[in-house]
Amino acid sequence: MKVRKRLVLVALWIASLALPAFAADPLPSWNDTAQKKAIVTFVERVTKESSLDFVPPSGRIATFDQDGTLWAEQPMYFQFFFALDRVKALAPKHPEWKDKEPFASLLKDNVKGALAGGERAMLEIVMATHAGMTTEEFAQTVKDWIATARHPKTGRPYTEMVYQPMLELLAYLRANGFKTFIVSGGGIEFMRPWTEKVYGIPPEQVIGSSIKTKFELRDGKPVLVRLPEIDFIDDKAGKPVAINQHIGRRPIAAFGNSDGDLQMLQWATAGSGARFALLVHHTDAEREWTYDRTSSIGRLDKALDEAQAKGWTVVDMKNDWKIIFPFEKR
Amino acid sequence: MKVRKRLVLVALWIASLALPAFAADPLPSWNDTAQKKAIVTFVERVTKESSLDFVPPSGRIATFDQDGTLWAEQPMYFQFFFALDRVKALAPKHPEWKDKEPFASLLKDNVKGALAGGERAMLEIVMATHAGMTTEEFAQTVKDWIATARHPKTGRPYTEMVYQPMLELLAYLRANGFKTFIVSGGGIEFMRPWTEKVYGIPPEQVIGSSIKTKFELRDGKPVLVRLPEIDFIDDKAGKPVAINQHIGRRPIAAFGNSDGDLQMLQWATAGSGARFALLVHHTDAEREWTYDRTSSIGRLDKALDEAQAKGWTVVDMKNDWKIIFPFEKR
Repeated sequence: MKVRKRLVLVALWIASLALPAFAADPLPSWNDTAQKKAIVTFVERVTKESSLDFVPPSGRIATFDQDGTLWAEQPMYFQFFFALDRVKALAPKHPEWKDKEPFASLLKDNVKGALAGGERAMLEIVMATHAGMTTEEFAQTVKDWIATARHPKTGRPYTEMVYQPMLELLAYLRANGFKTFIVSGGGIEFMRPWTEKVYGIPPEQVIGSSIKTKFELRDGKPVLVRLPEIDFIDDKAGKPVAINQHIGRRPIAAFGNSDGDLQMLQWATAGSGARFALLVHHTDAEREWTYDRTSSIGRLDKALDEAQAKGWTVVDMKNDWKIIFPFEKR
Repeated sequence: MKVRKRLVLVALWIASLALPAFAADPLPSWNDTAQKKAIVTFVERVTKESSLDFVPPSGRIATFDQDGTLWAEQPMYFQFFFALDRVKALAPKHPEWKDKEPFASLLKDNVKGALAGGERAMLEIVMATHAGMTTEEFAQTVKDWIATARHPKTGRPYTEMVYQPMLELLAYLRANGFKTFIVSGGGIEFMRPWTEKVYGIPPEQVIGSSIKTKFELRDGKPVLVRLPEIDFIDDKAGKPVAINQHIGRRPIAAFGNSDGDLQMLQWATAGSGARFALLVHHTDAEREWTYDRTSSIGRLDKALDEAQAKGWTVVDMKNDWKIIFPFEKR
């Protein structure tokens, strides 16, 4: 064995020993508050083999809500902006929409008027824009939109409206052997085309609301056609149901921001051993938005009370996060 | 650095270089026939970075049917034996079953008589034995049963009635960066309690038929209650639908044994790039069972024709497999 090769091996060995001591802060956008300490303490409790609360890697399941937890959700859920853009793009093929609500109002940019029809109006908009094509066609439409659409307030692509501290948290958990899942009320096929690139979460770890699909042979070529029929609403009590259906085991850590996440956090924390639940509280009117108990989007009321009663970690965005969006980095 | 440590490092380094050259056959229970060659050729095509058909690890999705593909399914689907045992165990709590079909016949070990009621009888048996408890209670019942029940012909635990060549194939694919999934007509929660131990496939990579569940707080403790209502039948055209719903991308390789797997194989092979489809043909009356075109369980008819027309790999169990079950090893 040559001396140089031996030296390289020795250097690698020393580096491997030395690295942990010099490891950079894995959560640099988090201020050194109790919230950050709670996260790090939990991760150390379940990952140190000497810990009484050690959990083997296969059990390190962490679930994240998306809207308001991983990316912003104001002034409307971003998927709804997608639906509005699709109504406009599809309007030439639907001359009848000019006189038909909720489309007529939408085409005049009167969102409030369109939504006066309540849940039924919302459902009509979703079905008109999310069904009637193959899964591959829909995925391509989402990819095209997400690459070009801009948020009405910041002018940024929606994929830049993600929370930098949460990106760091996802990476930190994965570096510690966690499998990270999205469990969102948003559409499962609206998220999957881009979550791997943006969050490092592959399609098979994305759970969401869905419409039914049907297998067909078209000229001998198999396709899945998206039908205008709700399959599953992944919100509130639906979240533990979906977690059980998709993952088949209980998360040991769950992250949300609204009453829609309450049952997921209850489900995760009711298991045995060390458990972790975190709520993102939108408290920063300057850098993001301020809303909680009375908001129609992302209402945080019952879950906030329960977090306080049960000692769950509540992130105060204004005080706990150094930056909110990646584009704030200099 | 001590001499001994240096020697250990050097030894490890030499071992790491030497291993590939001495690597044992990863498929030792497969005879060296065209079927084995087709598997190895496909895996090399998609994993060699220099290959035109190279697929990055994230895209290496392989889906496997279970009954008749990974474990045996004769003289009845094993899950049905579970249901029969549950009927007997639950009978004392259901005195009315003595006079009520299909239970009355079952309790007299008259399975044929019980199934004379067709699909409706089957559904009643499934619901009586699979619903009405929490998901945790059901998982425990399955664990207890699978640990103690014995196959009526071989006297072996059902988890030993798995196909050794397929276990090797699963491990070989995973060693080559594949993510392996089960996509079975069987119950998703009947499989998950033991698939990780038996096949190395974790719960989140198990897809199957399901009944609905409901989230409830019982004395403040969240539970999921199994309801007597079909949620999804993961068979035939349902398989691509379930694959899309759970995995969100198309497998590049799919493995089945019956017409129930035809659409899954069509779906997997219709994607671009290198694709692989394999059918297990039950041809060994001595070591296992012989059945195909006219069998009520695991019928292989249309899929066999399509495999021949499209050049899919068809495994002849008698000729291609050295051993079938692990217990044949000496």
